[in-house]
Amino acid sequence: MKIKSLLIINRGEIALRILRTCKALGIKTVLAVSEADKESLPAQLADQVVVLGPANSQKSYLNIPIIITTARAVGVDAIHPGYGFLSEVPALAKACEENGIIYVGPKPEHIEKMGNKLVARSLAKECGVPILSGSEKVNSVDEIVKIVKQIGLPVMLKAAAGGGGRGMKIVTDESQIQSTFESASAEALSAFGDSSMYVERYIANARHIEIQVLGDSYGNVIHLGERDCSTQRRHQKLVEEATAPLISEQLREEIRQSAVKLAQSMNYQSAGTVEYIVDQDAGTFYFLEMNTRIQVEHPVTEMITNVDLIEEQIHVANGEPLHYSQEDILIRGHAIEVRINAEEPNEGFRPTPGVITKWQIPQGPGVRVDSHCYQGYKVPIFYDSMIGKLIVLGNDRDHAIRRMLAALDEFKVEGISTTIPFLKEVLSSDQFRSGKVNTKLVENIMNARQLV
Amino acid sequence: MKIKSLLIINRGEIALRILRTCKALGIKTVLAVSEADKESLPAQLADQVVVLGPANSQKSYLNIPIIITTARAVGVDAIHPGYGFLSEVPALAKACEENGIIYVGPKPEHIEKMGNKLVARSLAKECGVPILSGSEKVNSVDEIVKIVKQIGLPVMLKAAAGGGGRGMKIVTDESQIQSTFESASAEALSAFGDSSMYVERYIANARHIEIQVLGDSYGNVIHLGERDCSTQRRHQKLVEEATAPLISEQLREEIRQSAVKLAQSMNYQSAGTVEYIVDQDAGTFYFLEMNTRIQVEHPVTEMITNVDLIEEQIHVANGEPLHYSQEDILIRGHAIEVRINAEEPNEGFRPTPGVITKWQIPQGPGVRVDSHCYQGYKVPIFYDSMIGKLIVLGNDRDHAIRRMLAALDEFKVEGISTTIPFLKEVLSSDQFRSGKVNTKLVENIMNARQLV
Repeated sequence: MKIKSLLIINRGEIALRILRTCKALGIKTVLAVSEADKESLPAQLADQVVVLGPANSQKSYLNIPIIITTARAVGVDAIHPGYGFLSEVPALAKACEENGIIYVGPKPEHIEKMGNKLVARSLAKECGVPILSGSEKVNSVDEIVKIVKQIGLPVMLKAAAGGGGRGMKIVTDESQIQSTFESASAEALSAFGDSSMYVERYIANARHIEIQVLGDSYGNVIHLGERDCSTQRRHQKLVEEATAPLISEQLREEIRQSAVKLAQSMNYQSAGTVEYIVDQDAGTFYFLEMNTRIQVEHPVTEMITNVDLIEEQIHVANGEPLHYSQEDILIRGHAIEVRINAEEPNEGFRPTPGVITKWQIPQGPGVRVDSHCYQGYKVPIFYDSMIGKLIVLGNDRDHAIRRMLAALDEFKVEGISTTIPFLKEVLSSDQFRSGKVNTKLVENIMNARQLV
Repeated sequence: MKIKSLLIINRGEIALRILRTCKALGIKTVLAVSEADKESLPAQLADQVVVLGPANSQKSYLNIPIIITTARAVGVDAIHPGYGFLSEVPALAKACEENGIIYVGPKPEHIEKMGNKLVARSLAKECGVPILSGSEKVNSVDEIVKIVKQIGLPVMLKAAAGGGGRGMKIVTDESQIQSTFESASAEALSAFGDSSMYVERYIANARHIEIQVLGDSYGNVIHLGERDCSTQRRHQKLVEEATAPLISEQLREEIRQSAVKLAQSMNYQSAGTVEYIVDQDAGTFYFLEMNTRIQVEHPVTEMITNVDLIEEQIHVANGEPLHYSQEDILIRGHAIEVRINAEEPNEGFRPTPGVITKWQIPQGPGVRVDSHCYQGYKVPIFYDSMIGKLIVLGNDRDHAIRRMLAALDEFKVEGISTTIPFLKEVLSSDQFRSGKVNTKLVENIMNARQLV
């Protein structure tokens, strides 16, 4: 292994996740933290900890010059960006190349192409991957009106530089176009430094299905099945599962193959996720975007395939071929992940940073917890509110739901409010249990609540 | 499901293990505890807690009249005995039958037959399962001397009513026979209330391999592969793994089939384990005993098969057929379990009861912890010293070892000494890593230590 030491430039559960695989591989871990994360569990468990800067991410987790200087000073062989922060910023991957540091992720050009959602759309189209009818870059309300006349309402306004739900707004009525355009492009500017927008047909009650792919530098690309991430609140995923329930085997296979085709077309390397919108009634699917990094929800894929995705990322970055061929990937059981946030679901999901006075996690057969928290840990106010992920594997979907509900019941957190009670509500809802998941599920539950 | 409520008459991690499956099945759990276990984690998580009696097991966990009275008073449908305590006492299974309570385990006659090790030996022989040359019941030193003349030394003196390593002593020299017989039969009397002994040929450097079987009331019997439990200290298992390393596929299959045959011959129901001694050099195997209960090491089988063994026990007790046929059992990966004890390995493994002031368990991909402990929990002095089990699943044995070492490193316990450092030593030893495990491995490590 060329990679003998690795700098983790992230925080929270994903920092710990990367650290664990490094430990199992015998790679020395150096964790780069902000001042706010010095007491975190990954900081306690890393071989070495370096402080990048203050809590403000611009001065720490997002600061490429400081990160490269740190990596060179410590003398690490590789950098893993995790998700979020710099994980889809081609400049970091380029800076690593220029400084002789191995970047654990795809090539800069992969990040760049897929980061521009319009370029990604056209590449998908070239590969024969279905895309939603939509526009090129739009600069004015007039242009949007014109496109709406062609493709009809509702439409989604999307940030060209975007992803992850930010800078994304639905237009259901022509009168909303102006105000929605203004607010979405302002959000895009603040999130991505680029206000460019485009328009896409919007499918209500759609499903969000994504394919995990892995590629190496020898031209091999495989898929590890799909994840259904339809259970969202305001375009943020709450519950993810693998495999996707209630879709025909033909559609499932078509989606999987289309993801492999897209990744192959650009000689994609490392772990990536091709996201789709699925119109279940019509039995059709459309390319949404490709994420060129490890995803929050990767553990459900690990549970059903027994593949360590971070380990494969490291092997590929190390110049090795993938340790699996497509035939080696055997999918068994059904896995569900819930994201546990420090939020008060009864008060509009406001964040609830503070000290965790009790932290008792569930255990047992099929149960996995990925979390950087511990009893006595103070959840800082500076970052996103996810405090952990609970993942279960069952023989089938019903078994996984039953195990998840039992595990949520066993999860005891005191000192701060969490979304655990809300997640129980979602998992035990008739709609979720039936498998008829879609992007309206959480809204349906919230509405039913208000009616009671 | 006929079983709507279940009384767990056990403590520690196995009480919690049973409770978890009941929760996932929607079965109400009533936990029967001694006065010493009222603060334990299973007591906190059970739907209802009843106190059987004082810490002394004779007055609580081993007291059949009190248990039956309690079960009737609470009105439970079923009893699960766990392992140890009353789990292989036919009188409990009979008392359940007589009182209309479902016993989650085999029929009284199965427990009775396999509980008498001499009856078990002769049943195995009838089924064509190889047994070690040995004796019927022996009552005197003279009888033993006579047998030793026939089969040669070394031999093992064993308790007829025994199992689990108690009342078991090796004789390597004829001069030891008298003293060994006296001490072994005294130990048998105190452990099982029966001093009857028998003699069996002893194989040094043997391996201990056992087959997990499941049977139902419709005559179906399946196996779930084998576990290697050779890594023992004084006949007590320390490390268990599945599948067994370094045995030929032919031998593996022969052992598995012989276990199914034995279980089928008596229409065995519920989970059971057929234990074998394997003489690796000779490529031969010999029946040792059959345990008619769930085993401590059952999770390694669950990890590689994705079958919940406690759930199958409950289904069978409920009168259902097994939820799996032999073809459904797919073995994937390699799993290892270590038993973590509150003991000081540097002081002859003396027990270290007391308050756990820090309890930080490992998590992440392929890691499972089964433990009833928590930060602030006081390990009582009254029971065995196991405080938890750490189980990992890897793609192969080497991966599992690497994951286990990383997980042991992440396991932080303060306030009491544990065997975690010693387990690291075992797992990282050349002999263990090579897969050449046998019952001398721990002794070899201890001897090497003393030489350093």
